[in-house]
Amino acid sequence: MSTNSSTILTPLATPMPGSGMGNATTFTLDNPTFCCYLFWSTVLVAKMLLMSLLTALQRFRYKIFPNEEDLFFKNLEVKFDDPHVERVRRAHRNDMENILPYFIMSLIYISTNPSQAIACNLFRVASVARILHTLVYAVYPVPQPSRILAFATMLCITFYMAAVVALRTLSFI
Amino acid sequence: MSTNSSTILTPLATPMPGSGMGNATTFTLDNPTFCCYLFWSTVLVAKMLLMSLLTALQRFRYKIFPNEEDLFFKNLEVKFDDPHVERVRRAHRNDMENILPYFIMSLIYISTNPSQAIACNLFRVASVARILHTLVYAVYPVPQPSRILAFATMLCITFYMAAVVALRTLSFI
Amino acid sequence: MSTNSSTILTPLATPMPGSGMGNATTFTLDNPTFCCYLFWSTVLVAKMLLMSLLTALQRFRYKIFPNEEDLFFKNLEVKFDDPHVERVRRAHRNDMENILPYFIMSLIYISTNPSQAIACNLFRVASVARILHTLVYAVYPVPQPSRILAFATMLCITFYMAAVVALRTLSFI
Repeated sequence: MSTNSSTILTPLATPMPGSGMGNATTFTLDNPTFCCYLFWSTVLVAKMLLMSLLTALQRFRYKIFPNEEDLFFKNLEVKFDDPHVERVRRAHRNDMENILPYFIMSLIYISTNPSQAIACNLFRVASVARILHTLVYAVYPVPQPSRILAFATMLCITFYMAAVVALRTLSFI
Repeated sequence: MSTNSSTILTPLATPMPGSGMGNATTFTLDNPTFCCYLFWSTVLVAKMLLMSLLTALQRFRYKIFPNEEDLFFKNLEVKFDDPHVERVRRAHRNDMENILPYFIMSLIYISTNPSQAIACNLFRVASVARILHTLVYAVYPVPQPSRILAFATMLCITFYMAAVVALRTLSFI
Repeated sequence: MSTNSSTILTPLATPMPGSGMGNATTFTLDNPTFCCYLFWSTVLVAKMLLMSLLTALQRFRYKIFPNEEDLFFKNLEVKFDDPHVERVRRAHRNDMENILPYFIMSLIYISTNPSQAIACNLFRVASVARILHTLVYAVYPVPQPSRILAFATMLCITFYMAAVVALRTLSFI
């Protein structure tokens, strides 16, 4: 019986060689590629949430508040368009424009059962590139092309994943 | 044969006790935690889409249109920066900054097979907090710290989930 | 043994008839509905990323740069609020407001095991509508109501999916 049981579970625990299809364990902690996605996506989510706190920090530092009810100090008026605050907000918006589509794209890319080495390294490079993007844009402005390179890295990786997924599912158009 | 068949399905239908691993039923309607995520994420998606309609409502009410082709009334010019419209747009942007990363974070948090009681209550509290955030920000402005508390609730919950996932997948860095 | 093996895999490869529940193959390439989602979501991700490049194109065309370090030409100053650039940015923001919640909503809609014909056609119509939205908003402005119709199409589809999911999971409130 125990022999039988192990035979039964084998097809679930490892993808059938050569099938190239995702299987029932794709989105579980048994899949190292998915675990790598989990870790680096978590890092990027935390990074994005810290942008909110960085905006709040700049607002308090320069006393720039956009709502009447936020005027925490006396003799203050509603203000917009402070360059220090707006820089962080532009960086945050750029994060939303690029990282949020990347989250979905890389998640569905895993379902095509890619090579673990390729997929994990793409996740690592894309995530580190976006952390650098934030540093050179919002934390300590650095001359170009540093920001363009950091931006282009995740963009190209997302396009590559899109090409892989689209070619695999082209018949379902 | 029927006995054999039921034996085969058992390891799939219930998580192996003590394994702590996600299993093949994690992202199906057989998992109550995932069902709870489905319900409350749906509520938040609907809430976010209603922000678009609320912005449109404010635009028609105060006749503030940002595009030439939107001038639905005579003798109207393109206008920006109306405080009533901009308040709703700021609330909407805040939703995107916080709820969209939360969607991904809570979805992948489920794959770590968390305690059903903890996970479901986190989903409930976070969702209700964001509904309150919209009410006190965009619908009927209320003095602080009501908005900060509502904002911080989902932020802390997302950071908690991020910590759980990152600690579980730290070896895949 | 080979007979036994095929018997074992059958319950995984096809949903149990009449159960109406998602099963272990929902989020694999064995599910045609999921493959259709993969293809059209990939198209929309690529479309969104192209908005970033379209914004950059407009910035270089009209020489409008919001950061000191982006001044790639001599005798240039930091500028905002150019109508050509802002139009593309408004279209891009509208994409984020609508397509990103749609990605999550349609992904979790698949877990309710919907009819393949209905789900696939919803994905197709919603995606084509958003491509048209971009064309009539950011590429070549066209009189209303073309943009409102394209906008409303995906909005209604997302609300429909939300209603289906919420009704199926109402007991997990």
